Amino acid sequence: MPPTITSRSNPWFRRFRDAIELHGEEIVLEGPKQIADAMALGWEPIAVLRSEPDASPGDHLVSPALLRSLSETMHSQGVLALFPRPQTSAEAILRDASAPVMILDGVQDPGNVGTIIRLAAAFEAAGVLLTEGCADPYGPKAIRASAGTLLLVPVARSSREEIVRLCRELEVPSFAAVAGGAARPLPPGRSALVLGSEGQGVSVEMRAAAQPISIGTSAKVESLNVAAAAAILLHAAWNRRQR
Amino acid sequence: MPPTITSRSNPWFRRFRDAIELHGEEIVLEGPKQIADAMALGWEPIAVLRSEPDASPGDHLVSPALLRSLSETMHSQGVLALFPRPQTSAEAILRDASAPVMILDGVQDPGNVGTIIRLAAAFEAAGVLLTEGCADPYGPKAIRASAGTLLLVPVARSSREEIVRLCRELEVPSFAAVAGGAARPLPPGRSALVLGSEGQGVSVEMRAAAQPISIGTSAKVESLNVAAAAAILLHAAWNRRQR
Repeated sequence: MPPTITSRSNPWFRRFRDAIELHGEEIVLEGPKQIADAMALGWEPIAVLRSEPDASPGDHLVSPALLRSLSETMHSQGVLALFPRPQTSAEAILRDASAPVMILDGVQDPGNVGTIIRLAAAFEAAGVLLTEGCADPYGPKAIRASAGTLLLVPVARSSREEIVRLCRELEVPSFAAVAGGAARPLPPGRSALVLGSEGQGVSVEMRAAAQPISIGTSAKVESLNVAAAAAILLHAAWNRRQR
Repeated sequence: MPPTITSRSNPWFRRFRDAIELHGEEIVLEGPKQIADAMALGWEPIAVLRSEPDASPGDHLVSPALLRSLSETMHSQGVLALFPRPQTSAEAILRDASAPVMILDGVQDPGNVGTIIRLAAAFEAAGVLLTEGCADPYGPKAIRASAGTLLLVPVARSSREEIVRLCRELEVPSFAAVAGGAARPLPPGRSALVLGSEGQGVSVEMRAAAQPISIGTSAKVESLNVAAAAAILLHAAWNRRQR
């Protein structure tokens, strides 16, 4: 058994820390349940850090203080695992879709990103694409808001320009959720549903390439929370697919 | 003009701080827009703290550092105002309802509480009741998540026991949102819709007094975020009232 890691300059410690902070090509899952769920789906960890000894011989032991210091936002329950970021492409998701694909257009709040991924799993969306400016779907807050469903949903980052081009080339009907238009439902089959950021709404670029779609509300209210709008539109499309 | 408040022992400073921290009979609104909106609805501030001089003669000037120190979660934009907590009762809300009343049963996350209040405004729910263990709807995070709609929705705190008793006495049909039951919609007229906490769901006590109501989802997903469930149920009931 190798010695317990206690130094912040240890290469494994630094690699986990970079994965958590830099949102690059490696991601960190936290806690025994998340990690076991990912491995059950065939994900293979690059490395595992534990603060207590365990039967798993390849794991790295780390002091509890060092594990805690990895991130204030992590709730490791004593174990973190490093994985390669899943490499699904926007093109593959849009090409294979037979249900709506959620396009998150600059949704910055990781809680909203994770909640929308949870909705995509609940209502069997074909996937979630995230443009520039979105929170990392594999960041700890988004993973927690996804309530274990992140692993069930194809997720990819892409540019607005590429998404618009792919929807045109692949003839994916595109809709942009906007406030205050005529209320109309999302079609049940293949589509792209663009959801904008809380403050800004859908970007000019994405709006130009999509038909507007609205949810009727009281005139007293300007708009809905982006995840609430996703819930209503996705649920209705899913319900129509069940018939 | 009285001197600028710079001491943490100033009685006004302490009264604002207590209102923010203690969730008692006084509440604090932050920023010029929230405060102007409340006053437009007839709310009268007990006192206003500002970090910059203004034309309003009764306001208290306070040093910017002291204003910032009032709470890390406040985004005052230079002005805070103290108001009496609105005193609507659970009984008045349930008695006068002609649309669903949302019953939040231990919903601890202030973001979810505020988002549900925003949904109650958007889909014209008759009000929101909060049991023991809920986040304060007039706390700063809940107010921000309500996106300015908190002032439009009757909100009251009450006990589970009192809510169950009132629904029985006033003959309000009661429904509890639970995971995994048969999917059925919320009736459009007067009702009580009980929404549980994220981890625990609806309490045994509230569940015993209500009919279960579920939202159909993929079998892969155990449950929905509480605000997403509220969005779907409230939107459908509102849509049926519009017909």
